Amino acid sequence: MKVREATSGDFEQIWPIFHDVATAGETYAYPRQTTREQALKIWLDTPRRTYVFEEAGRILGTYYIKTNQAGPGDHVCNCGYMVSSAARGRGIATTMCEHSQKIARGLGYKAMQFNFVAASNDGAVRLWNKLGFATVGRLPKAFRHPSKGYVDALVMYKWLEK
Amino acid sequence: MKVREATSGDFEQIWPIFHDVATAGETYAYPRQTTREQALKIWLDTPRRTYVFEEAGRILGTYYIKTNQAGPGDHVCNCGYMVSSAARGRGIATTMCEHSQKIARGLGYKAMQFNFVAASNDGAVRLWNKLGFATVGRLPKAFRHPSKGYVDALVMYKWLEK
Repeated sequence: MKVREATSGDFEQIWPIFHDVATAGETYAYPRQTTREQALKIWLDTPRRTYVFEEAGRILGTYYIKTNQAGPGDHVCNCGYMVSSAARGRGIATTMCEHSQKIARGLGYKAMQFNFVAASNDGAVRLWNKLGFATVGRLPKAFRHPSKGYVDALVMYKWLEK
Repeated sequence: MKVREATSGDFEQIWPIFHDVATAGETYAYPRQTTREQALKIWLDTPRRTYVFEEAGRILGTYYIKTNQAGPGDHVCNCGYMVSSAARGRGIATTMCEHSQKIARGLGYKAMQFNFVAASNDGAVRLWNKLGFATVGRLPKAFRHPSKGYVDALVMYKWLEK
């Protein structure tokens, strides 16, 4: 079991994870009908780096890291994490988030920001809180949840330097 | 004097405005050394629409509108406004912001969000407040100001529907 940088060959296993999450429409700001080609661009091409959590040759989770705002904001990064539905509840998101903070520091980022956490996603909010992220913003009704309707989206933030 | 949709030919006059704002590095999350080609892509190609404020054939201000988040967030738009330094203090930003809210409603957006307003930019914060935007988030030290150092960035938001 390890976290390592993703290769383009990994997309075969990343795509089903991405597809599940996007189709559910409950947690990420991706269109539910995102195509495989669009997902490849979003998850592997656009970010600065992409990592996978691998166990015995199987990819169970993945995350990306990128600069959140250019210019005067480029010391703050943004990450997105996805875990295979079969592997949830095993601490893989925690492992990836801690890994991503080390990578972020190594790349020179001073803070990490999550721009759009559905307030209905209790598990994620609790986890990011536990890992030191503060809720610094609340966007009223900014997330259109497939069953709950409009829910707030949270902005979460952690300063990475001591 | 009118606000109208921008054409590619307008970039000749948009570029000096963009360049001034980006080079100052005090208000927008664009690299200070943004090239003309990059600016064209940022301001005219990527957004959903771009408008100019024109007076006697001269472009004094410009703004773009785009979808802020995809999928479950695509009912919220984002806008950016720039006014020529020679034309500031004349209410052009107000005119453009009011215009953009009408356009946003016409395009079906339900809310408008500014992701990254430097807290040091008092004039902008006051103006957006006056136009009905609430500060819904504060990102600690997320904006690296050229003379003030790290300052907070604000997230501002307005629900457009009645």
